[in-house]
Amino acid sequence: MDATDPDPRPTAAVESPRLVIERVQPELDGGRYAAKSLLGEPIEVSADIFGAGFSLISARVNYRGPGDSNWSFSPLVHEYGPDRWIGRFLPDRIGRWVFTVQAWIDAFGTWVRDLHARIEAGQDVASELLDGARMIRTALADRSTLPDAARVLCDARTPIDARIRAAGDAELAAAMERTIDDRLRATYERVLPIVVDRERAGVGAWYEFFPRSQTSSPDRHGTFDDAIRALPRIAELGFDVVYLPPIHPIGRTHRKGRNNARVAAPGDPGSVWAIGNEHGGHTAVEPALGTVADFDRFVRAAADLRLEVAIDYALQCSPDHPWIRQHPDWFHVRADGSIRCAENPPHTYDDIVPLNFWCEDRAALWSACRDILRFWIDRGVRIFRVDNPHTKPFAFWEWLIADIKAAHPDVIFLAEAFTRPKPMLGLAKLGFCQSYTYFMWRNTADELREYVTELASPRRAASFRGNFFTNTPDNIHAFLQTGGRAAFRIRLIAAATLSPIYGICSGFELCEGQAVRPDSEEPLDSDIFQIRPRDFSAPGNINDDVAAINRIRRRFRALQRMTNVTFLDPAHASLLYFLKADPTDDLLIVINVNPHDAADAHLPVPLDELRLPVDLPFDVEDVLTGERFTWRGPRSYVRLDPAERVAHIFRILRPPGSRAR
Amino acid sequence: MDATDPDPRPTAAVESPRLVIERVQPELDGGRYAAKSLLGEPIEVSADIFGAGFSLISARVNYRGPGDSNWSFSPLVHEYGPDRWIGRFLPDRIGRWVFTVQAWIDAFGTWVRDLHARIEAGQDVASELLDGARMIRTALADRSTLPDAARVLCDARTPIDARIRAAGDAELAAAMERTIDDRLRATYERVLPIVVDRERAGVGAWYEFFPRSQTSSPDRHGTFDDAIRALPRIAELGFDVVYLPPIHPIGRTHRKGRNNARVAAPGDPGSVWAIGNEHGGHTAVEPALGTVADFDRFVRAAADLRLEVAIDYALQCSPDHPWIRQHPDWFHVRADGSIRCAENPPHTYDDIVPLNFWCEDRAALWSACRDILRFWIDRGVRIFRVDNPHTKPFAFWEWLIADIKAAHPDVIFLAEAFTRPKPMLGLAKLGFCQSYTYFMWRNTADELREYVTELASPRRAASFRGNFFTNTPDNIHAFLQTGGRAAFRIRLIAAATLSPIYGICSGFELCEGQAVRPDSEEPLDSDIFQIRPRDFSAPGNINDDVAAINRIRRRFRALQRMTNVTFLDPAHASLLYFLKADPTDDLLIVINVNPHDAADAHLPVPLDELRLPVDLPFDVEDVLTGERFTWRGPRSYVRLDPAERVAHIFRILRPPGSRAR
Repeated sequence: MDATDPDPRPTAAVESPRLVIERVQPELDGGRYAAKSLLGEPIEVSADIFGAGFSLISARVNYRGPGDSNWSFSPLVHEYGPDRWIGRFLPDRIGRWVFTVQAWIDAFGTWVRDLHARIEAGQDVASELLDGARMIRTALADRSTLPDAARVLCDARTPIDARIRAAGDAELAAAMERTIDDRLRATYERVLPIVVDRERAGVGAWYEFFPRSQTSSPDRHGTFDDAIRALPRIAELGFDVVYLPPIHPIGRTHRKGRNNARVAAPGDPGSVWAIGNEHGGHTAVEPALGTVADFDRFVRAAADLRLEVAIDYALQCSPDHPWIRQHPDWFHVRADGSIRCAENPPHTYDDIVPLNFWCEDRAALWSACRDILRFWIDRGVRIFRVDNPHTKPFAFWEWLIADIKAAHPDVIFLAEAFTRPKPMLGLAKLGFCQSYTYFMWRNTADELREYVTELASPRRAASFRGNFFTNTPDNIHAFLQTGGRAAFRIRLIAAATLSPIYGICSGFELCEGQAVRPDSEEPLDSDIFQIRPRDFSAPGNINDDVAAINRIRRRFRALQRMTNVTFLDPAHASLLYFLKADPTDDLLIVINVNPHDAADAHLPVPLDELRLPVDLPFDVEDVLTGERFTWRGPRSYVRLDPAERVAHIFRILRPPGSRAR
Repeated sequence: MDATDPDPRPTAAVESPRLVIERVQPELDGGRYAAKSLLGEPIEVSADIFGAGFSLISARVNYRGPGDSNWSFSPLVHEYGPDRWIGRFLPDRIGRWVFTVQAWIDAFGTWVRDLHARIEAGQDVASELLDGARMIRTALADRSTLPDAARVLCDARTPIDARIRAAGDAELAAAMERTIDDRLRATYERVLPIVVDRERAGVGAWYEFFPRSQTSSPDRHGTFDDAIRALPRIAELGFDVVYLPPIHPIGRTHRKGRNNARVAAPGDPGSVWAIGNEHGGHTAVEPALGTVADFDRFVRAAADLRLEVAIDYALQCSPDHPWIRQHPDWFHVRADGSIRCAENPPHTYDDIVPLNFWCEDRAALWSACRDILRFWIDRGVRIFRVDNPHTKPFAFWEWLIADIKAAHPDVIFLAEAFTRPKPMLGLAKLGFCQSYTYFMWRNTADELREYVTELASPRRAASFRGNFFTNTPDNIHAFLQTGGRAAFRIRLIAAATLSPIYGICSGFELCEGQAVRPDSEEPLDSDIFQIRPRDFSAPGNINDDVAAINRIRRRFRALQRMTNVTFLDPAHASLLYFLKADPTDDLLIVINVNPHDAADAHLPVPLDELRLPVDLPFDVEDVLTGERFTWRGPRSYVRLDPAERVAHIFRILRPPGSRAR
């Protein structure tokens, strides 16, 4: 032995856990971020657990809700493949929960199992029974009353058969289980957070509109009262959330004209995202819309129609925002004394001034940004659509969202970050409840399949909830520009069935598909820069489609989940064909994503997956139209001519006696 | 604002990192375990890095070797896809290294980039130059001498053109880079360990043999001197490691006979894994083999032939092991006072007694187990093949390996854990340098492709190094039992080319393929239970194949790496066809894995991957035979009749002027 070595005994190591616990799910980045769940959904926890040798193992998830001082427990069972354990717990309220996993060797259970293996093999078990009795006496030494079985087993005068029977006693097993020394439980090295949101964070149909456009004439500025009058129509269309772009006073300096013209014409109202003027900033409302009190009435009117109001949270200022004078140091002050406007050199956006989130006085700035949210929360707003979060510090959002949700766990933040995949996912992980997606740029069947498959994977869904907007005030995809009314119907149904959260922007239901230029995605005459009255019952509208799909979304739980999608091969490039599975009702959905040409196919029917008989007829109902069809066998013919219909949503009418899911 | 809310300023949050650093690789289980590397191989570090907005980012890996008190740095570059950064560092010695990743905003570089974008667009940059000058003056305020460019840029009297030129000065950029405030560097939240082993941990050809069988007669027990005489042949066959199963005194109680007979016949030497008798335990040698001094000579004789000795580390005892008397409490003492033998109820293995690693006195037991290793390390042994580690506590191994490697980082542990995938991987992660694999049970081309693809993935290879043994003293697969000599040649070449570490057990080169029973994988007359002399030049041997493949393995670096394999489609179910790529020489290998029937195919030649011209002929050499062939174009015909040859290993002879890798 090395003379310089003090031969230390492994005193710490011998107290190490006796089992290995790994790969606990859901876990994001080693516990750095919280996973996401919705109230009402059980949280499924799984882990790899193994140890040396052949002993039986017991395992559990330990979980704790916000404010709880004690852990609750739920068993894990060993069922999904070697060494994989799984279990679940059901949070009873929203907020930040934590959980971890524990596992331990079930020595008594192992002894019982081995005893029976020996008996089966005809071996003498007299010594084994002595071992079991010793185990029981040691474990239950301090009990005043022993289970009957324990007394039988420990009494060597009892006949062997009776002692063997006693070894299998359930009450005895439970008593032994209760004596497990907590120090012998291996505990996963991390306590993992999971944020439980209310259902609206993960399920909902959004309608975006500009209050100032709720008017009959471009010369008259719509008001909150006009917007209140617009609500019943939106409610009848079946939406859950009405989202208003910024409602604040609009800057005058470098105000943009219609269609983003560099110079505004007299009377042009300016971009709603150029926030702030002499009437105030982010906590004021544009006087032409009304007052804060009018807004309060709008929120109440919406609530009466079971509509929830989302407003915009755009942390930028017009050059006329009060903060520019009050806190010039919150902005990028240049060496020449001027304040830098928004830019992506060489492009400049001079009606907007960005905040300098890393300025010296940033503690005050960040607080002021938070106070904007508190102001609107006090007005009853609980949903914020956050403009361009990826251009503000990630650390700011992580602090802000945690801070707000600590007091108001029901607040929902939607990230409007049309940026690269990793920052988008990064924002979701640090706390945004929902995110805009690339859905607008995924139009072919292949593109949609690939993208939705990615978002629907359980790992991704645990961090990122995609809100599938069909269009925005500054995005109208070429697919819609060139595909006519069928294109709008296709995108509506795709968005509303592929994601539990989707939205349209006002005008979509009128199939407004003109861009400012042929090669542009910017819509012509966008509400961003002008007052744009609409006749919502104009010919060619798709109001009926909107109302139908929103009704169907509310009726079928299969459309209120993201991860329950299975894409099936329609053997036709234009058809998108998928199963949305649910214990209540399975839906088979087929969409022709080509707005120009009919497509037909003999669709494979996943009889096995649907637990349907191979050789008996069964009925399906197209819940879009109420039509019924009788199907039989593994293929069914469909034809979708987009001039007439773009999709089927088939509900399976189970034949009597077939198994439910 | 909520009256109960003290309106805390975000004082901690505003000091948060300004960039996000995620998904750092190599990282195992959030840094819980160390990744693996070999001395001489650069360690490639990658990370997702992103921040808000459009600023330029700089990043580096910080790394530190064993005993280093200061960090070294190596730059990361942004080249593999959006937001993915990559770099490398080259450890200069073995041991436990640590690394992490830092990233920061390159404000000055961003300013230079934007300046040029503005100039390109014809904009006036007078104000920008003032901003740059302010940045320089602030950063370099305390420098006694400024770079020339800094003085030019900061002097408003200099003509604008000269100041623009100065802005792009490299010396200025470097000076500004050096002023970065360390507090503005974002640091990845974890410091990650990586164990750098010597090359033999990851590359080597192993030969397993029993010294007692190195004799001409079953009646004469082979000795270490006989084993010394066996070494030159093994060295000529090109092996790197000779592995000896246990060499310790063998128990007498319940000694097993030949072919694992329950009762030994007189003179039967017993199982070498029943360790310990009156002559001693794990630190003694079987007297019939010689003395510890004889063993020392064996180790030196091997070293003279550039062979390294590996011995067995089997932590179990025969009922006659000295510890049984000295430390009965280190075993499982039963209620009836007896000591429990090894068992998997209802099966019992009564010549072996397991240690109770969780006994009360376990600190002493674990120390004693460690001292066995220290004893053999002092005898010059640096490689231990660990018997059945999965039946001993994982925490024990983690402590033991770390403890031994802290003093002797050159020690190599091979885990003989034929168990389920997760415990096997778990042992590798906690510190075993090498692991036995399922290779013996992967025989078809599909099975081999799938398994090797799994082991060759960079993530897996960073934790698990598979040693592909073709056979063991207790495993001879049906493929070898029924496939004749061709089967042995196939498995030899597959093992030796698919993994940089492989081994054969003595007798394999003689194509010994008989099992104890037709339905068994246990070899007939295994050396485990008897003395088995062999004539290694007996007809039908494959010595030439063994020597050839070991020579080729040493010659071509492509065979000394695991992750450099690409499987190609040979369009024939019996052919396994793959590229082993390396900057020095690429090898194209095709093996007919059907020992009974010839197979032919027009193999696709990956011209692009090999950077070969599409339309010019080039030569290849089969390095197994030295034959040369001229190939041209994307397909080449091969035919492998296993009666003659089972494989080609083609080296590409680059035509003059073609690019090297």
